[in-house]
Amino acid sequence: MFQASYFLLSVGVLLQVLIVVNAELITPSIWPQPVEFQTSTGLTNVGLFEYTSKNGAVNTLEQAYKRYNAMIFQHNTESSDTTPVEVIVDDNSEAYPQLDTDESYSLTIPSPENSGEPIKIEAKTVYGALYGLESLSQLVMYDYDKQRYIISATPIRISDSPRYKHRGMLLDTARHFQPIPFIQRVVDSLSYSKYNVLHWHVVDTQSFPFESKTYPKLWKGAYTKPERYSQADIKDLVEYGRLRGVKVMIEFDMPGHASSWCKGYPEVCPSETCTEPLDPSSNATFPLIRSLLGECNGANDGNTEALFPYQFIHLGGDEVDYKCWENDAEIQQWEKEQGFSGSEDTYKYFVEQTASIAREQNRLPVQWVEVFEHFGSTLSKDIVIHVWKEKTTLDEVLSAGYKALLSNQDDWYLDHETTSWQTMYKNEPTAGLSKSSDPSLILGGESCMWAENIDPSDLFNTVWPRAAAVGEVLWSPKIDDSVDMDKVENRLQTFRCLLTQRGISAAPVNNHRTRMAPPNPGSCYYQR
Amino acid sequence: MFQASYFLLSVGVLLQVLIVVNAELITPSIWPQPVEFQTSTGLTNVGLFEYTSKNGAVNTLEQAYKRYNAMIFQHNTESSDTTPVEVIVDDNSEAYPQLDTDESYSLTIPSPENSGEPIKIEAKTVYGALYGLESLSQLVMYDYDKQRYIISATPIRISDSPRYKHRGMLLDTARHFQPIPFIQRVVDSLSYSKYNVLHWHVVDTQSFPFESKTYPKLWKGAYTKPERYSQADIKDLVEYGRLRGVKVMIEFDMPGHASSWCKGYPEVCPSETCTEPLDPSSNATFPLIRSLLGECNGANDGNTEALFPYQFIHLGGDEVDYKCWENDAEIQQWEKEQGFSGSEDTYKYFVEQTASIAREQNRLPVQWVEVFEHFGSTLSKDIVIHVWKEKTTLDEVLSAGYKALLSNQDDWYLDHETTSWQTMYKNEPTAGLSKSSDPSLILGGESCMWAENIDPSDLFNTVWPRAAAVGEVLWSPKIDDSVDMDKVENRLQTFRCLLTQRGISAAPVNNHRTRMAPPNPGSCYYQR
Repeated sequence: MFQASYFLLSVGVLLQVLIVVNAELITPSIWPQPVEFQTSTGLTNVGLFEYTSKNGAVNTLEQAYKRYNAMIFQHNTESSDTTPVEVIVDDNSEAYPQLDTDESYSLTIPSPENSGEPIKIEAKTVYGALYGLESLSQLVMYDYDKQRYIISATPIRISDSPRYKHRGMLLDTARHFQPIPFIQRVVDSLSYSKYNVLHWHVVDTQSFPFESKTYPKLWKGAYTKPERYSQADIKDLVEYGRLRGVKVMIEFDMPGHASSWCKGYPEVCPSETCTEPLDPSSNATFPLIRSLLGECNGANDGNTEALFPYQFIHLGGDEVDYKCWENDAEIQQWEKEQGFSGSEDTYKYFVEQTASIAREQNRLPVQWVEVFEHFGSTLSKDIVIHVWKEKTTLDEVLSAGYKALLSNQDDWYLDHETTSWQTMYKNEPTAGLSKSSDPSLILGGESCMWAENIDPSDLFNTVWPRAAAVGEVLWSPKIDDSVDMDKVENRLQTFRCLLTQRGISAAPVNNHRTRMAPPNPGSCYYQR
Repeated sequence: MFQASYFLLSVGVLLQVLIVVNAELITPSIWPQPVEFQTSTGLTNVGLFEYTSKNGAVNTLEQAYKRYNAMIFQHNTESSDTTPVEVIVDDNSEAYPQLDTDESYSLTIPSPENSGEPIKIEAKTVYGALYGLESLSQLVMYDYDKQRYIISATPIRISDSPRYKHRGMLLDTARHFQPIPFIQRVVDSLSYSKYNVLHWHVVDTQSFPFESKTYPKLWKGAYTKPERYSQADIKDLVEYGRLRGVKVMIEFDMPGHASSWCKGYPEVCPSETCTEPLDPSSNATFPLIRSLLGECNGANDGNTEALFPYQFIHLGGDEVDYKCWENDAEIQQWEKEQGFSGSEDTYKYFVEQTASIAREQNRLPVQWVEVFEHFGSTLSKDIVIHVWKEKTTLDEVLSAGYKALLSNQDDWYLDHETTSWQTMYKNEPTAGLSKSSDPSLILGGESCMWAENIDPSDLFNTVWPRAAAVGEVLWSPKIDDSVDMDKVENRLQTFRCLLTQRGISAAPVNNHRTRMAPPNPGSCYYQR
């Protein structure tokens, strides 16, 4: 035992020597890797960032500067040294970001000789400028010996833009409720690795914590009264996300995964004992869905503002088990009246109805891959297919000409506890596509945090640092097969330590099961 | 498998019915249980707390109101309703709290009929008033149906004061480094269950992250440069704690557990290969210790302000292995010159020297129980003995007339992963004391978070909710044998959910190993 410990200690000391160099940031490190990143050998002192702009201050950026200053300049809080950061944004609009919002930026940090010059962030949009600020924040180090802040390897010039437009993480708040402060921290942490979508899987079989104003009994399906999200909470959260460049895509998973809807409105379910999929034959079902989605998307009544301004709405559609339909005489009778040959037709009817409601509310429908597996090319071409099964299904979806989001469970499900960050990192979206598949139909992808075994106690150490691997795949240029995984790991270790410095409970990088406790004393930078 | 799940689900549903009642707070719940807690049947609406005082505003309380308002009133943030909370404090002093600082308070919440009257907090000191505010904060619930804040069971009258004066949690930042934002969140969470001491076990064999200005090479013993605490960080943290009524007691564990000191100053260690206990024969050792402690305690040079104003300093003294002394010819020679009969005398010399340095710096020394086991009644009576071994040793310490802190490892070590909250709760400090033991010599106790397997990723779900059980033992009146543990559990479930609502990753209450993931979907209020 002692021998083994000593051996580990020796390895530790060796690694420490290597990493201390890194920790001093002789080589500065940014996660996700920027497209172009030119460094030199200077060392530039910096102080609190002072936001300057020649064409007017933008509230979103003013708030961002306050947040970043508080986060970066944690030490030596009595110092009032400042460094001007000039932001040049083509368009000052703070309108809600969308899929096509330009997120590119460039960042210039002067050499020590020109330290009187401002740091410059240039971007097309306010949201691009936020990414410039995030990259800048990762370059600032505190020099404990001289008790001042520095950026090493200056002058630095970064030119950067994302590979994919939709970079999301799914968060399931139905299997366990996540209080708003936790969702806010998720949004914070997503922005650190340049994710831009929180896919909010808000309701499921087990609970319905979401407030509908038009169907106010729906949230009777919540576990308890305090475990609910009011529309005021939701509005605050959506704005919280916008300020950080993180859009919220809401999901109502239909017609399966919907038992909790029956607590308040039993009339939309087949029966008391067989509660899902939702009952397509009930006169109550589609009016409720239309109204609920109208609250999310903005109804065409001219009065209802959209809770979720993102152009996509996720309608679920996965894992539909026909049993409750097949065992229900009324539903069977209704199928006959519709001229349906069976439940497969009913499923398709449901999928098309919900997609059509989304469309009439000016939203693009996203549905899980089962709808493609069942109905293939007969589906409307505007439906975005969210692939969670084998990677090979992505090829079929693209070949058929559909747009897609990638979340193949083997590689990108965060609740798969033994999936390593390396596996997540090597999940190249375009790998293995056939010639008939147009890779530009891949809008992006998502890591997925299903919450059967996740609650506020273990959310962050399950998500991080692995979700960062997905973040880099979605943001950075395509990874070459010859990528040096040791270097990637070194950057990820540094990023994990950065997360902890920002108060995020990211797990040790090389856990063979996620969220394991560190097995031995040691440094964050070489924790095994 | 399915049958088992259904059974669990049924139990869940049953429990849900019970708990939803609780979640609506028909019976309001405070953790730790106040001494006197009179409730009635009214329902009083409240809004943002407006701090009023007839004898001048106190900065500590103004800041506390801002914090609590942000924490309590998370929903419906557009509302600007306010409720006056009048604070009547006998002494407005914001001087650093000490062991004898009066922490009592009373809290009066008017009935709905008198809702124009202010809520009243009365206390002898500013720090007592903070506890009144904490209790008040736990009574406020959000009524999601009416979208307003309420306090139920009004009028309420609480009269409260702590059973023990020193209510601490030990945090080890040497086996793993904890970034400042994590220590701040620990301080926050301690204040929620009315702990008043963070016992900072800052250095140990593995690392020395603490900055000394007089011996600036000491923190070369840190794992890496960023894994260090500057004195500016430390000052900020101590003030952060004071504002929340949490004192910081620093520990330098000597002469064992000290290898990391040798990285910067090898001259204080026996040799390069045998590094601890510290070398008592070196001319360098005690000057270094005196100087280091002087930075903490305020040296008598008239210039050095104390980093840690709490009247106690912990000097360690545990687990001293004589091997490095016995194998070192110089130390053996020195022992002879001193007329010592062996290493036992050397150990005692060390203990007395460090206690004497603390004393000359106007601090009361705290040392681990080994110093009593070795030297018994020959120790100075002002040394506070910190009992971490069997509970029976407490009796011996008290019988011999020493003051004590209790942290018996079997019951109060948080790194013991299978120790349940019930075990922690039933660890009555005075149980089993003999007649010769004066229980008033127990100054209090501490739960202990040793960090061999704890880093930022698993700190909070290891500490909470179990540390709250210790918090209640130290604050609330002695628990009767007839205590209804189901009721206690119900309050603890509610408190755990409160912690999560405040952003603290507290683990499910009934985990049989700490920090386990929840095994099934479910509510926070009845998670098994």
